[in-house]
Amino acid sequence: MHKQTITTSTNQYDVIVGNGIIDKIDEFLPKEYHNILIITDTIVNDLYSDSVKKNLPSSAHISVSVVPAGEASKSIDQYYRLLTAAIEHQLDRQSLIIALGGGMIGDLAGFVAATYMRGIHFIQIPTTILAHDSSVGGKVAINHPEGKNLIGNFYPPVAVIYDTDTLISLPDKEKRSGYAEVVKHGFISDQDFLHDVLQTDITSQLHAAKLIDHLQKGIAVKANVVEKDEKESNIRKFLNFGHTLGHAIESELGYGKITHGEAVAIGMLFAIQVSEKTYDITLPYHPLKNWLEKNGYPLNIPSLQVERLVERMKKDKKSENATVQMVLLKGIGEPITENITDQALSNLLENFLRELGS
Amino acid sequence: MHKQTITTSTNQYDVIVGNGIIDKIDEFLPKEYHNILIITDTIVNDLYSDSVKKNLPSSAHISVSVVPAGEASKSIDQYYRLLTAAIEHQLDRQSLIIALGGGMIGDLAGFVAATYMRGIHFIQIPTTILAHDSSVGGKVAINHPEGKNLIGNFYPPVAVIYDTDTLISLPDKEKRSGYAEVVKHGFISDQDFLHDVLQTDITSQLHAAKLIDHLQKGIAVKANVVEKDEKESNIRKFLNFGHTLGHAIESELGYGKITHGEAVAIGMLFAIQVSEKTYDITLPYHPLKNWLEKNGYPLNIPSLQVERLVERMKKDKKSENATVQMVLLKGIGEPITENITDQALSNLLENFLRELGS
Repeated sequence: MHKQTITTSTNQYDVIVGNGIIDKIDEFLPKEYHNILIITDTIVNDLYSDSVKKNLPSSAHISVSVVPAGEASKSIDQYYRLLTAAIEHQLDRQSLIIALGGGMIGDLAGFVAATYMRGIHFIQIPTTILAHDSSVGGKVAINHPEGKNLIGNFYPPVAVIYDTDTLISLPDKEKRSGYAEVVKHGFISDQDFLHDVLQTDITSQLHAAKLIDHLQKGIAVKANVVEKDEKESNIRKFLNFGHTLGHAIESELGYGKITHGEAVAIGMLFAIQVSEKTYDITLPYHPLKNWLEKNGYPLNIPSLQVERLVERMKKDKKSENATVQMVLLKGIGEPITENITDQALSNLLENFLRELGS
Repeated sequence: MHKQTITTSTNQYDVIVGNGIIDKIDEFLPKEYHNILIITDTIVNDLYSDSVKKNLPSSAHISVSVVPAGEASKSIDQYYRLLTAAIEHQLDRQSLIIALGGGMIGDLAGFVAATYMRGIHFIQIPTTILAHDSSVGGKVAINHPEGKNLIGNFYPPVAVIYDTDTLISLPDKEKRSGYAEVVKHGFISDQDFLHDVLQTDITSQLHAAKLIDHLQKGIAVKANVVEKDEKESNIRKFLNFGHTLGHAIESELGYGKITHGEAVAIGMLFAIQVSEKTYDITLPYHPLKNWLEKNGYPLNIPSLQVERLVERMKKDKKSENATVQMVLLKGIGEPITENITDQALSNLLENFLRELGS
């Protein structure tokens, strides 16, 4: 079991990573709660709701609200339905919400907790590799048809309890989605970490110790950044490496057609190519592309149209004054933000997609 | 012109009160904004949108979104419509939302600002007396059919610009609504302030200097409390004097049938009567009742049913573990919170309503 403490402007919380720790949830609750609402999705509910419930204090009133699995549940409708459920179960300001599931559940349940009675405690119990990223840093949100995560808050959990037993048997596309963010944490931080990750075959069963090591390192990168810049005024933007195009692809295809990490993987390739051209340097574009191909990432998506993607990127909430801002690399571990004009972006993207398709 | 600076855990903002200061908005903006969305209601839009627009920097892109006047607009539907408007007008993280109107607009537009791209700047330009209360303290929210302000955030504005010219010609019920909160600030703070307010005839045209004095004093009471307890862990609860029953009456009758302050006025009378009985003391129940009657407050509402009101109060977000918590007074300026059992509450409320009706 490994514990990291994250300090934010408003609180401090522990991220606990380990095998079988769902059985010890009770030990990690920061206080006693009388009323607990578990928010989860249809798939995770079948797998883990019972284990979580039976390990919570028997004195607490516990209820479970289930939303359909998939990014489409990060909607205003599900959000409102969950708030209504919280009222029906008589949650008060001293109650707890548990987000049990992947990043979608963490974002959605976190936003419910952030806004229910102006904010009640919530705990993340992530069940995907991808959630090593989203569960740390306090960003919670729902989507708008016009863009991902456009409606949300900065609202840290009171604890993150990460049981790696839940990760070993994830479906391949979920492993791909999660490992893309691990790769990202490598690119923006450390050559050795990146190198090690790009040696990993994620198509076969994951090696538990290796997985825990990668998750801990990824969480440490993220924690280090968000502690310095919780509200994304400056360096937190670096975590969006690969996300400008990634988000645009996700929303253009419709959430659920491609996983978040798979979209970010394409976005990282693009950001690397733009970096190479902008700074006249060489970065591991081909090693990354090879690793992505070997591990089954979808890279060629014929339906994508340059102009539509550029429009999406301009609507991204990271854009300022409607100019697209991208995170580029001057080297491994040396991220930097750049504003790019629409015209330049169109040209770069057209080239990139053509090369990727060929 | 009078300026108070409010310090919160996350920022600092000025509350500026004075005559004709809408004409000087530009001077009070804390930074330069390229894109500004004014959110207002149908009534205030006709009266003040043009003045506000023409006094904003000509370099900024300015748009206006209008919602129907009345508490019913603090709904999930209007909230979502405004977020969509913000996206359509291409607001980014550096943009500004101006809440132009009464407390409904401040709460609604503030919650839009708090959650749009996880929070952008907003400024309050209150146009009611009631808003002297709601515009200070950073509470923003929308309503749920099951209760008022159940969905929201703590999210302070970057400035409050309070032009008292907008208040002189308010309709009587708006004056009553606002003055109830002025009275409340008297009760929880200071005998002399209270005495002065209860001498004021609000049925005739308000005297400008007197009004400014009352508003400043009310704002100072509120600011003093919220600076010490922004998130309502303890003393901020005192500001809910009169609100436990007040909120229940409002939501029971349906928002808009009675004004917020009119409902709070009845709630204060009840809280005073409960205080007198609980602590065996004498408080100015009759002076308050006389003042309310003289100034046209509706006190006898035959449709109210005790059991339904108690149910509402239990759902109020101030309640903890489903026990109703009321703010009582041990004397003028000596508020205290008490948990009251359902049975005691029912008996007290039944007596109170019977007396009020006779």
